[in-house]
Amino acid sequence: MSEQNNLGEAYKKTTYKVPGHGPRNIQVLKETLLGIDGEMESEMYGKGKVIDDFQAKMAKYLGKESAVFFPTGTMAQQIALRIWCDQKGIKKVAYHPLSHLEIHEEDGLKELHHIETYLLADKDRVIQLEDVIGLEDDIACLLLELPQREIGGQLPDYKTLEDISAYCKEKGIKLHLDGARLFEILPYYQKNATEVCELFDSVYVSFYKGIGGIAGAILAGDHGFTEESKIWKRRHGGDLISLYPYIISADYYFDQRVNKMERYFEEAKEFARCFNQCHGVSTKPLEPVSNMFHVYFDAPKEEMERILAAIYEETGIGLTSYVREVTKTTSNYEISIGDLYAQLPKENVKKVFQLLDEKMKALK
Amino acid sequence: MSEQNNLGEAYKKTTYKVPGHGPRNIQVLKETLLGIDGEMESEMYGKGKVIDDFQAKMAKYLGKESAVFFPTGTMAQQIALRIWCDQKGIKKVAYHPLSHLEIHEEDGLKELHHIETYLLADKDRVIQLEDVIGLEDDIACLLLELPQREIGGQLPDYKTLEDISAYCKEKGIKLHLDGARLFEILPYYQKNATEVCELFDSVYVSFYKGIGGIAGAILAGDHGFTEESKIWKRRHGGDLISLYPYIISADYYFDQRVNKMERYFEEAKEFARCFNQCHGVSTKPLEPVSNMFHVYFDAPKEEMERILAAIYEETGIGLTSYVREVTKTTSNYEISIGDLYAQLPKENVKKVFQLLDEKMKALK
Repeated sequence: MSEQNNLGEAYKKTTYKVPGHGPRNIQVLKETLLGIDGEMESEMYGKGKVIDDFQAKMAKYLGKESAVFFPTGTMAQQIALRIWCDQKGIKKVAYHPLSHLEIHEEDGLKELHHIETYLLADKDRVIQLEDVIGLEDDIACLLLELPQREIGGQLPDYKTLEDISAYCKEKGIKLHLDGARLFEILPYYQKNATEVCELFDSVYVSFYKGIGGIAGAILAGDHGFTEESKIWKRRHGGDLISLYPYIISADYYFDQRVNKMERYFEEAKEFARCFNQCHGVSTKPLEPVSNMFHVYFDAPKEEMERILAAIYEETGIGLTSYVREVTKTTSNYEISIGDLYAQLPKENVKKVFQLLDEKMKALK
Repeated sequence: MSEQNNLGEAYKKTTYKVPGHGPRNIQVLKETLLGIDGEMESEMYGKGKVIDDFQAKMAKYLGKESAVFFPTGTMAQQIALRIWCDQKGIKKVAYHPLSHLEIHEEDGLKELHHIETYLLADKDRVIQLEDVIGLEDDIACLLLELPQREIGGQLPDYKTLEDISAYCKEKGIKLHLDGARLFEILPYYQKNATEVCELFDSVYVSFYKGIGGIAGAILAGDHGFTEESKIWKRRHGGDLISLYPYIISADYYFDQRVNKMERYFEEAKEFARCFNQCHGVSTKPLEPVSNMFHVYFDAPKEEMERILAAIYEETGIGLTSYVREVTKTTSNYEISIGDLYAQLPKENVKKVFQLLDEKMKALK
């Protein structure tokens, strides 16, 4: 059995797990259905009360004219970029080198839509206004991912967002928000969703990250944009006869968790501080700007797997099921804070960091 | 209120409805979940026990090496055709003029995959061997839809299927089965799924027609083909983190209904005979070859809406919620027989046809 499997096994056996809201099991769906009348009708191919109501609710929350429920963000975002490209007649968009579209979608944007991409900024920092200036004749749309997940969930200053938005508006570049974790960043910016979304022409949000639903996404914008997105949704094979299992769970967990984002954010900062006090451990960002961050270890992956597995066994607390190699001598993992964090026994958490500090020191 | 709405309203008020298995409401999902342990884990992006098990079960049932669960047939079939086109280096496929891909998918195949289509046969008949002969240098793949839904669910002779399959194999044309209603035609052919699927290189089946699940499809073929289909599934935005709500319901209703197809078929034939005994009414096909057929009326749409609404009110039986215009003087609707048919009171059904015959005669 590999070391990674050992860490995974040790994690499974822990009494308390730190990340997220709990296991992704069928209970998540069962709980949703408890309060739903069995006679409630399914929508049919994007039409019907269950989908109409949720789309209207999300359009209002995001401050957009209209919203469409999609099975995935992958589909929603490719379609958003396609619509803006068709409108401007330029098949090129710009985004961060570590955008979801660039590294997690098997090049769907290029293979299905033949849209070229312009990669902005360095891999290890967020996009700034300077990166965008001068691109207006080359690209139809700029996609900003807030927070930039693959670098620990980093954010630009709000002033930078406003400047980029103003620049794009002036120059005729459409601005699209990859808001997979939009709910999660509102406490840091101290803005509501409408205020952030006003800066963008189109917005995607996800319901299975901080919200903890089963799957699904919303794409929002003006009416003409969302109507066109429905045609592409059908072309992609995303116009299911029934999406209601995702819609009712998105709605249920949205109501339950959207107002807890401030708490997750505060807890993430507290938890990051604990890591940063340990020898040979640091977080990125140093102070989180949402409920997520990356934890970096000055030790190779295999070493860290051994250390963490030992800590899990002694404390009953599971930090992560995996560690990734960064370099031959360093490693990391990603953490998102959710409902589970508040249930951790403080004493055990204290012990985790005491052990981690000791074991990291002992390595040197 | 329009006449169509009047028929729809009259249909809603009936005590007994003829088509399908019952309302498409949330109870369909709730029933599925009753027997499922809440601790059962979700699959993650196409990997995990719940999806692996069902894919293996369907691969075995269809007699194929491997199977992949898709959110829709639209996605699965475009991808199948794309893979075969890429393999042969010809971006052209052939299918019936009334194929789902041609009339219900907003031209996704053309817009996303840039695959040209060659329309075989006339609109009102199924594809024969003669239609296929000579196409080998022009097309990568031939898609056959069994039964051909838009013409009432018609089928070629089994011998024709075997001949087309042999011809395609000899000439290097890939043969794909649009088996949205594959389960439903097995009783007519007196074959099992494996025997039919052996004639095809790739097969799609659906779980919300005769099976009555919530949504979802399986694409099956050899291992190399299905592995490539997973890459395209991600590109399309169909690789959801969790498809389990569809998978567990597909599995549940598959077990419940796959062996009832013979009964639905017999009932469809019985029901069609009743229509064909009425003045000015006929079915297509005259004798159904599956659980579905179309009912044609020698009367305009509006006239039929009035007649049917009156019959519903008098008998408590709802035949259909809509009627479509065929010509200025004729109209039709589609019926699929499912669980509900067996629950209809025979006396009321007899009364339906007595009234229909009388009212159609009175028109002349």
